[in-house]
Amino acid sequence: MPETLTLYTAKVCPYAHRVELALAEAKAQFQTFEVDLQNKPVWYAPQVNPASKVPAIAYGGPEVPPEQPSPDSTKIAESLVLLEFVADIFPESNILPKDPVARAKVRFFIDAVGNKFNPAYFGYVVTGKGTQADLIKGFKDIQALLPETGFAVGEWSIADAAIAPFIARLFVALENDFGLYAVGEGPKTLELIKTSPELKRIQTYIDDITARKSFTDTFVPSIIKNSLIKRFANATRASSAL
Amino acid sequence: MPETLTLYTAKVCPYAHRVELALAEAKAQFQTFEVDLQNKPVWYAPQVNPASKVPAIAYGGPEVPPEQPSPDSTKIAESLVLLEFVADIFPESNILPKDPVARAKVRFFIDAVGNKFNPAYFGYVVTGKGTQADLIKGFKDIQALLPETGFAVGEWSIADAAIAPFIARLFVALENDFGLYAVGEGPKTLELIKTSPELKRIQTYIDDITARKSFTDTFVPSIIKNSLIKRFANATRASSAL
Ligand SMILES: [Ca+2]
Repeated sequence: MPETLTLYTAKVCPYAHRVELALAEAKAQFQTFEVDLQNKPVWYAPQVNPASKVPAIAYGGPEVPPEQPSPDSTKIAESLVLLEFVADIFPESNILPKDPVARAKVRFFIDAVGNKFNPAYFGYVVTGKGTQADLIKGFKDIQALLPETGFAVGEWSIADAAIAPFIARLFVALENDFGLYAVGEGPKTLELIKTSPELKRIQTYIDDITARKSFTDTFVPSIIKNSLIKRFANATRASSAL
Repeated sequence: MPETLTLYTAKVCPYAHRVELALAEAKAQFQTFEVDLQNKPVWYAPQVNPASKVPAIAYGGPEVPPEQPSPDSTKIAESLVLLEFVADIFPESNILPKDPVARAKVRFFIDAVGNKFNPAYFGYVVTGKGTQADLIKGFKDIQALLPETGFAVGEWSIADAAIAPFIARLFVALENDFGLYAVGEGPKTLELIKTSPELKRIQTYIDDITARKSFTDTFVPSIIKNSLIKRFANATRASSAL
């Protein structure tokens, strides 16, 4: 991989974290630029990602400082597009299996993260429109896709990258009781997820994905916690809205 | 490709149509089973797709009639997972380019279809919550991703398969004035899409994707029209709700 690669990321962002995981697993050489999402550099949208979101990758072109993106590099955005891209430029990393059926299983798992797990998470924590039961259902939906042991599909893959950042952030939120559920419910929900006999398989899975070196190297809980403090400080809690 | 392949599909369904296009372009040998979505066979959910939706593919295992799916075949669902799967099992078909940057462009285009174009379409036609302006914006978002000429990314690809079924169904709906917009607005909106100087590039693109043999071989407008007649016969129109 002789091409230059710059990742535009933000430690708080689970979507960006997905790509950090894939690049770490691929042992990629790359530059990184931390985008302050509350105060984005003026050049970011026009020169890197018109949608003004992270993650984004600048690929190819001359070696330049991340703050001066070259018009000659290709800019690529969207976390799931980037997971596939990292797998494509590092085929020897095997972060996406070679077998077509296994690849389909990876993609089906990723689809379930986006269409089942994350809506359950956001509904319970972010919008307050979902219940604890909805959240547990989200975990069960994912659990139903897991093989008896190990990662989502064979060796560690971009399927695991797709979910780990969200589970990790959910756990920080629950542990600190941040979210639009009733006051005090967060830690109880966390305890339930971590100890329910009905979630035994995914409990082991969560241990496995969060123990992975790529994960511990890229996840900084204190940053997530500080971001959540700001985010939920003035939010209306379910209990106070009653 | 010596493995058996059965596609479970439904002519009305745009998601299933995506996969029909990919298989046609790949010149695949496969069995097909038309699922009556109003009256699904009792074996379909338990033996093919637990989500009870089309499209689904049964891949591998012994040659069996589609109505008697083998437990030894792999069942795969979700249209975008299947587009990638067809590209993976028919690599020589080049329905997904080999170059990683081109592949990323294909996937970014597909993401825009799902997250920008289709919400604009469904908002205008199906839920009545979107305006004509929203729909036109959806076309412009896609148009902005198109190269100066030709298909979405180089040769015909699964990017084109992702959008063609939706545009085709939208046009049938508008032409017949089916949709939750004001009575009489459908044909006018269609005329606008087909003639607006601001949509020149995507007009040519639509001509190109709908003239493709894989498309004309797989699209049956009369089936779409009959399905829309049933669907909108009793729906509350925007105008009558005023
Ligand atoms: Ca995808």
